[in-house]
Amino acid sequence: MSNYSKMEVDPPKELLKPLEIPNKILMGPGPSNCSQRVLRSLGNQVIGHLHPEMFKLMDDIKAGIQYAFQTKNKLTLALSTAAHGGMEACLGNLIEPGETVLIAKCGIWGERAANMANRIGARIEFLTTEYGIGFDLDILESFLKRFKPAAVFVVQAESSTGMKQPLEGVGNLVHRYNSLLIVDCVASLGAEQLFVDAWKIDAVYACSQKVLGAPAGITPISFSPLAVEKIFNRRTNVSTYYWDMKILGDYWNCFGNPRIYHHTISATLIYGLREALAELTEEGLRARWSRHASVAIKMREELLKRGFRLYVKNPKYQLSTIVSIEIPNGVDVKMLSARAMERYGVEISGGLGPTVGKILRIGLMGNNSTYRHVDLLLDALDDALKFSTKSKM
Amino acid sequence: MSNYSKMEVDPPKELLKPLEIPNKILMGPGPSNCSQRVLRSLGNQVIGHLHPEMFKLMDDIKAGIQYAFQTKNKLTLALSTAAHGGMEACLGNLIEPGETVLIAKCGIWGERAANMANRIGARIEFLTTEYGIGFDLDILESFLKRFKPAAVFVVQAESSTGMKQPLEGVGNLVHRYNSLLIVDCVASLGAEQLFVDAWKIDAVYACSQKVLGAPAGITPISFSPLAVEKIFNRRTNVSTYYWDMKILGDYWNCFGNPRIYHHTISATLIYGLREALAELTEEGLRARWSRHASVAIKMREELLKRGFRLYVKNPKYQLSTIVSIEIPNGVDVKMLSARAMERYGVEISGGLGPTVGKILRIGLMGNNSTYRHVDLLLDALDDALKFSTKSKM
Repeated sequence: MSNYSKMEVDPPKELLKPLEIPNKILMGPGPSNCSQRVLRSLGNQVIGHLHPEMFKLMDDIKAGIQYAFQTKNKLTLALSTAAHGGMEACLGNLIEPGETVLIAKCGIWGERAANMANRIGARIEFLTTEYGIGFDLDILESFLKRFKPAAVFVVQAESSTGMKQPLEGVGNLVHRYNSLLIVDCVASLGAEQLFVDAWKIDAVYACSQKVLGAPAGITPISFSPLAVEKIFNRRTNVSTYYWDMKILGDYWNCFGNPRIYHHTISATLIYGLREALAELTEEGLRARWSRHASVAIKMREELLKRGFRLYVKNPKYQLSTIVSIEIPNGVDVKMLSARAMERYGVEISGGLGPTVGKILRIGLMGNNSTYRHVDLLLDALDDALKFSTKSKM
Repeated sequence: MSNYSKMEVDPPKELLKPLEIPNKILMGPGPSNCSQRVLRSLGNQVIGHLHPEMFKLMDDIKAGIQYAFQTKNKLTLALSTAAHGGMEACLGNLIEPGETVLIAKCGIWGERAANMANRIGARIEFLTTEYGIGFDLDILESFLKRFKPAAVFVVQAESSTGMKQPLEGVGNLVHRYNSLLIVDCVASLGAEQLFVDAWKIDAVYACSQKVLGAPAGITPISFSPLAVEKIFNRRTNVSTYYWDMKILGDYWNCFGNPRIYHHTISATLIYGLREALAELTEEGLRARWSRHASVAIKMREELLKRGFRLYVKNPKYQLSTIVSIEIPNGVDVKMLSARAMERYGVEISGGLGPTVGKILRIGLMGNNSTYRHVDLLLDALDDALKFSTKSKM
């Protein structure tokens, strides 16, 4: 039938070589390592996206995410995207063209949210704070009064600086001004205290690949009843089918309707996330919070002993997942990272966005939040520093 | 610090039970089974989304996708979404608000594309054909003349009916009317002939979980130089950050610029897709096309011997990946499917969208496109039919 007897593109030779994956200890800002249990689960044969066993796994995951978020929100599920999709789904479902979103900005993630909000025709106002310092309720209230936003976007863990934004009281204040609160907890879920219902958060998303310790590509997300009301009373369609929560919520059986086919969910990622949430359940959320807090304290103590300066000075803004330190004078970060990887198999990361060339970021997340990992990281850092310092500190 | 001494949501008991995944033979319209090689690759420890080893794997995958699509397009990569995201990325990048898209409709996928195009403010025109029958070039030309669309959307494999749309000559015709051609080959890539460059296709996407035999969640996509020109000369922003190809193309090193961080790609899905593409390369694309054609012919012969009626009558519209048959009188499809699964571990699927209650769909894809699978499916079907027929055929 075809005239094309000759293939136009040859088979790629590089694909004839065997797959070789190094075993690294991921102590940057994410992803972190998966446990052997999670990795084993990924090798299970795939099943269909509409099979009863899949629906059971999705129900398990929904319950696990509700536990991790501390919410009874019915519209709770996992998006089939990276966490960036979670950000876009929250903004895209809760904001209509012409509405104002107030974005708390103190690093890269506020900028990213603005990029997305701009695409859907939102008006954008920033509540900007210095890097490493969160906003307080007084300044937030003055912005709410002035701009009357439809929604407020806040990042709990600003991974580009290592800053934690305190969230208590924020939801109540935002609601007093008839606005909705969107929270990004990508780099904090499972490590920092979070009570989605008690703190009156209307939309929240995280990721799978940091504290939870599952593979990337599937993103926990949840919407409050107030958010659901807004979604069902929009004047305009959500600009994407893929994360239109009205349809996706039916795939995940969130509204009590019959399940529908929305997209083909990844069985593999479902297995991994299910097992990661099972590990969280077995450890207990509060125990995991405590573990991350203790390990981060130990890491900071040891770094201070060595003369490093913390980038986030005020303890109330310090994260348990990412410890950021100023780069000592004369240190070449690329050489440092390369040496730590080569000699110790340990990832140490530089800055991101505004902090590139200013800080090192040390991730202590999920399976990698242990005292043993603190020791290993410090050994690697001590060695790599000697190797990568050109002049005296 | 917190007053919330009590957790508000208890740990979910269902997550304390062990994970149990049945081993099924997936002979519905997808996903299909992964090979042991692909499954083994998924258990590798994850690595970072910006590590040099990851960039090498992404390069391997790009080369593999170019081979599978038979294209030298630079803007070729894998989206971190299900295939629905591929559809939305093609439409969203190539169509601006107010522009017209002509959608060839003969099943569910044209409807789905219209749903997405509507959300981005496109004007929609349909070229509708009867289920199981493709359009020809004459009718397409009359529609191009009449509606002057900015883009034409065509599905190569309409999985809801089992129909193949012939594509030779379509691209040339579409270009003659200054339009761009978007092709969905989700249910055909690797099984049906496809020459993206020679056939002048401007945007094409597939999926990972059918003929390629990788886990779902990562989606091959490619854009022609003409499509890239349109993308870089848009008047408006693409409505989503997540699949803005201008940014994503830099993450995948498609434009010769330094790589940037766009999102955290899933190492696990990258491993699986890389190995699936390696298997395609080892078998050879043409050999895989032949295998799928032979196995589908055998399946149709055997079904006809048994007195079944094919839903797609004209051989030129018959797919090699999905064989659709009319449901015999008196057969309860749910009972039939349940019996085939229970006794043989084999998935047999009913219709989708317009064909629900009208047809059975038998998938012969990737690892499941073998004569052994034909025999197994027929054994299961023979047995299940007896069990699920209420009256004589």
